[in-house]
Amino acid sequence: MHQYRSHTCAGLTKDHVGEPVRLSGWVHRVRDHGGILFIDLRDHYGITQVLCDPDSPAFAAVEKVRSEWCIRIDGEVKARSPELVNPKLPTGEIEVFVRDIEILGASRELPLMVFGDQEYPEETRLRYRYLDLRRDEMQKNMILRSDVVSSIRRRMWDKAFREFQTPIITASSPEGARDFLVPSRLHPGKFYALPQAPQQFKQLLMVSGFDKYFQIAPCFRDEDPRADRSPTDFYQLDMEMSFVTQQDIFDTISPVIGGIFEEFGKGKKVDTPSEWPQISYKDAALKYGSDKPDLRNPIEMQVVSEHFAGSGFAIFAKLLEQDGTEIRAIPAPTGGSRKFCDRMNAFAQKEGLPGMGYIFWRDQGEGMEAAGPLAKNIGPERTEAIRQQLGLGVGDAAFFLGGKPKSFEAVAGRARNVIGEELGLTDKDRFAFAWIVDFPIYERDEETGKLDFEHNPFSMPQGGMDALMGDPLDVRGYQYDLACNGYELVSGAIRNHKPEIMFKAFEIAGYGKEEVEKRFGGMVNAFQYGAPPHGGCAAGIDRIVMLLAEEQNIREVILFPMNQRAEDLMMNAPSEPTSDQLMELHLRVIPQE
Amino acid sequence: MHQYRSHTCAGLTKDHVGEPVRLSGWVHRVRDHGGILFIDLRDHYGITQVLCDPDSPAFAAVEKVRSEWCIRIDGEVKARSPELVNPKLPTGEIEVFVRDIEILGASRELPLMVFGDQEYPEETRLRYRYLDLRRDEMQKNMILRSDVVSSIRRRMWDKAFREFQTPIITASSPEGARDFLVPSRLHPGKFYALPQAPQQFKQLLMVSGFDKYFQIAPCFRDEDPRADRSPTDFYQLDMEMSFVTQQDIFDTISPVIGGIFEEFGKGKKVDTPSEWPQISYKDAALKYGSDKPDLRNPIEMQVVSEHFAGSGFAIFAKLLEQDGTEIRAIPAPTGGSRKFCDRMNAFAQKEGLPGMGYIFWRDQGEGMEAAGPLAKNIGPERTEAIRQQLGLGVGDAAFFLGGKPKSFEAVAGRARNVIGEELGLTDKDRFAFAWIVDFPIYERDEETGKLDFEHNPFSMPQGGMDALMGDPLDVRGYQYDLACNGYELVSGAIRNHKPEIMFKAFEIAGYGKEEVEKRFGGMVNAFQYGAPPHGGCAAGIDRIVMLLAEEQNIREVILFPMNQRAEDLMMNAPSEPTSDQLMELHLRVIPQE
Repeated sequence: MHQYRSHTCAGLTKDHVGEPVRLSGWVHRVRDHGGILFIDLRDHYGITQVLCDPDSPAFAAVEKVRSEWCIRIDGEVKARSPELVNPKLPTGEIEVFVRDIEILGASRELPLMVFGDQEYPEETRLRYRYLDLRRDEMQKNMILRSDVVSSIRRRMWDKAFREFQTPIITASSPEGARDFLVPSRLHPGKFYALPQAPQQFKQLLMVSGFDKYFQIAPCFRDEDPRADRSPTDFYQLDMEMSFVTQQDIFDTISPVIGGIFEEFGKGKKVDTPSEWPQISYKDAALKYGSDKPDLRNPIEMQVVSEHFAGSGFAIFAKLLEQDGTEIRAIPAPTGGSRKFCDRMNAFAQKEGLPGMGYIFWRDQGEGMEAAGPLAKNIGPERTEAIRQQLGLGVGDAAFFLGGKPKSFEAVAGRARNVIGEELGLTDKDRFAFAWIVDFPIYERDEETGKLDFEHNPFSMPQGGMDALMGDPLDVRGYQYDLACNGYELVSGAIRNHKPEIMFKAFEIAGYGKEEVEKRFGGMVNAFQYGAPPHGGCAAGIDRIVMLLAEEQNIREVILFPMNQRAEDLMMNAPSEPTSDQLMELHLRVIPQE
Repeated sequence: MHQYRSHTCAGLTKDHVGEPVRLSGWVHRVRDHGGILFIDLRDHYGITQVLCDPDSPAFAAVEKVRSEWCIRIDGEVKARSPELVNPKLPTGEIEVFVRDIEILGASRELPLMVFGDQEYPEETRLRYRYLDLRRDEMQKNMILRSDVVSSIRRRMWDKAFREFQTPIITASSPEGARDFLVPSRLHPGKFYALPQAPQQFKQLLMVSGFDKYFQIAPCFRDEDPRADRSPTDFYQLDMEMSFVTQQDIFDTISPVIGGIFEEFGKGKKVDTPSEWPQISYKDAALKYGSDKPDLRNPIEMQVVSEHFAGSGFAIFAKLLEQDGTEIRAIPAPTGGSRKFCDRMNAFAQKEGLPGMGYIFWRDQGEGMEAAGPLAKNIGPERTEAIRQQLGLGVGDAAFFLGGKPKSFEAVAGRARNVIGEELGLTDKDRFAFAWIVDFPIYERDEETGKLDFEHNPFSMPQGGMDALMGDPLDVRGYQYDLACNGYELVSGAIRNHKPEIMFKAFEIAGYGKEEVEKRFGGMVNAFQYGAPPHGGCAAGIDRIVMLLAEEQNIREVILFPMNQRAEDLMMNAPSEPTSDQLMELHLRVIPQE
């Protein structure tokens, strides 16, 4: 017989009754029923009930085992009597009578229990992650993550993509965040950087003639930690293709992402990938107040300025006299009660607005009545015109925000989310996708008045060089995001592969040729030697798994995450280097005051 | 029609004759045949001949293109006349008459040619890697690498392994080499380290109850560069299993590695994985003079001390009077000529030995004659006994080395390689594998006399705690390597999962409990909470691909390697940090003198 097991703890059924077997695993739970010891023996695959009574030569040894000891047992498979069958367990029809036991690994007193649902502080969980990971939910999350990544790989291979590994110890990559630096021992005073993404390398691969690249790529950003962000390293599905248009990228990656959500979405409805809407950045801001709208929520905002211009509602009427202002409505079907409207008004105040105007419609015996102070101020005709534009009726409400769109769009988007959520309009059993397209290339910093890149600087402007000769703020890029349930899952672009257009694009944002060559030299040089048109995208693996696992915290889907202070308490990282190490690197730590 | 291509440059056959098509790719070669321009248009998939004459509206534009410009052409597929068919090209039966052309990316003058076999200095190739990678051989190597890695993944999944990603920014991992350090911004003066291997994490995964782990894992070692070693990062197939014996690991990984060599070995013979011999470390040293023997070479060395003890060959006879000395023979079938023997003697002198004694046997009319000074010194009886022991005959030779085995084993191994090579005994069309087992746990440093770990310190000693109570130099570990054609491909062990045995093992090597807890705290702590018996191994991806691609230099199988000074000239890494960056990290560079 094998030294440790003849079967896994999920492998025994009624067919094995009477057989001698050997199992190894962890003591999940021990119970003493009138002198008979019952152990739920757990391994990666399942749980088998084993038992022992004083007739067994192993009894004295079995009596000593405690939770989470790792043991090997020999015994005989017995059928459970019908009333003791556990239908929830694949092995629930049998149990194993123990005749021999070996302690493979004893355990100290446990700082956290594996069995049961007790909650522990995150610091405890991370310090004893190897125990935390034994818990059923964590095993499931990690298996899900591994299976999602495998499935992504299979799907990319099936589309004739090849995976290539790009360097990890390399030069700074200009993704906008802070680099992790790695001091060079051989070149004192010089540093490598860990890549924020393989952006430049994947573009270089296209210049090298590799037509279709992907990588489940480790990415590194020295950012301040957040619940939905790893403070150090994270993984992306990174892909790039040559000789493609934006639509080609959508046609390629949509079925991959959609397929993953179909496969692992636990039966939730997944929008058909070929039908995912393409929404311009501008429309997304207008209708959803977000460039990653949650389309499970059917609410679409509308511009209703005309109904307020010159109206009796002085605040909006005055606002509209300023250039660039608008009034927008958030329709709230079924939200037509003063209680709900007041709650949303309070939400707006919490968000820092003076409040949020509203109208709601109720049945008033002989007909519909529009209620709320706003309705009174603008009068019945305008109110009715608004109702008709928004397609609302009795029992519905609408909320209004005004000003320069930039100043209220984000709040409007959050209000839309809350309304959809509170009124039960948002379909929780669905993954709703949309490609957000036509991102502006530039944005103007409100404070400095300076133009800068809105996204990353590598996207091809729509209209090419000609477009760059006009108003920069009008330039749209072949640049896109995939939104799912309010999250950005994917981001990408058709790249600017023409050196002259690239230099011009940078010039507009205030970067001289010399600086561009210094910062992106590898890529800019390469583009001088016959660069193909190319584009691609990157999808956040952690985010995808979080959505599928229905977790809010990224650390629930990472094996050994750092804590929120970017520390690994289990491995003791970061730690103080030895003076020899510092000397080899020609570095001195500046003492803090 | 698609904006860039209706077909790839490998897609057109006689079936397409008469069709209008669009192709994109690089100008591989341009020829002017009497006013007709022929272009070999190349993309990732193949080459198509396109042509243009002055009748085409595109002629003037086509005349301007140069090698490695990236272009898009529209044209019509024409059949080549039979005498112009190129049977070597899948598209060799057709050509495309160009009617329209678009320059997608022009090229400057090329620092290295993609077409042809010209050799360039490595610095040029690495600086312009994106051009170098366009060359046929490099495309093939990178595709091979990608396909090998994919195949490994599929094979591991088929064996019910799951891939898990372990942290990259973490604590120092004690693999014996130098760590790359990463300064922490949030914890001034503290440093993370990049893992030399995921050793501790994979063992922690086993403690966490994950039964079968693998990872194509990036590993980082700050080592001085060598031809067959990347100076910074490299990839391993890393795997670990719980509740296993050494034989289980062999049974699992042998078919994976063997299968890869079958699949990508270009028809070379691959030894059947279930028949790979298991050779003890001691026997490998004796028979092959190496712990990674090349078994394509049939030569096995033997101990022949008895024939020299007290013989007339005073050097060996005297040697044998010292403790721990031996005389070993390297049989050299078909090496029986003075010329060859002298050449081998010269080889030994180049290796720093005084020379290498030899005997060779030749036909002397009425019988066999043993020639060489050694034979004369020891006389015919001893010479004949040696011949019989080694199973040699007319036309064969044998070489002799003596002393303490450690002092000559390595040279003997190299001599065995040269003999096998020069005499054509080594079968070049074969991948020959062997598991080397029973490595000693400890070795004694000849200079200091101190005991230290021979391999890594995590292996389970055969015999457990009892074995550690005896002579440490007698302790063998459940520790193994896989040798292939003279290279170490895989290295692994059944781990020491028992804290008390681990502390004892470290104590013998001079490490106190406190130091062990400091250096390997994460793992040692984890072992206190019910650790399962486990083991695994790691296989070098670069090495495997090098063998399959028949390359001698690791940089031929890596996309963007560093040069031998650990610099990336293309991306300019490492480089000087900004003073802001250093300030954020609280570091100062110590000026060099």
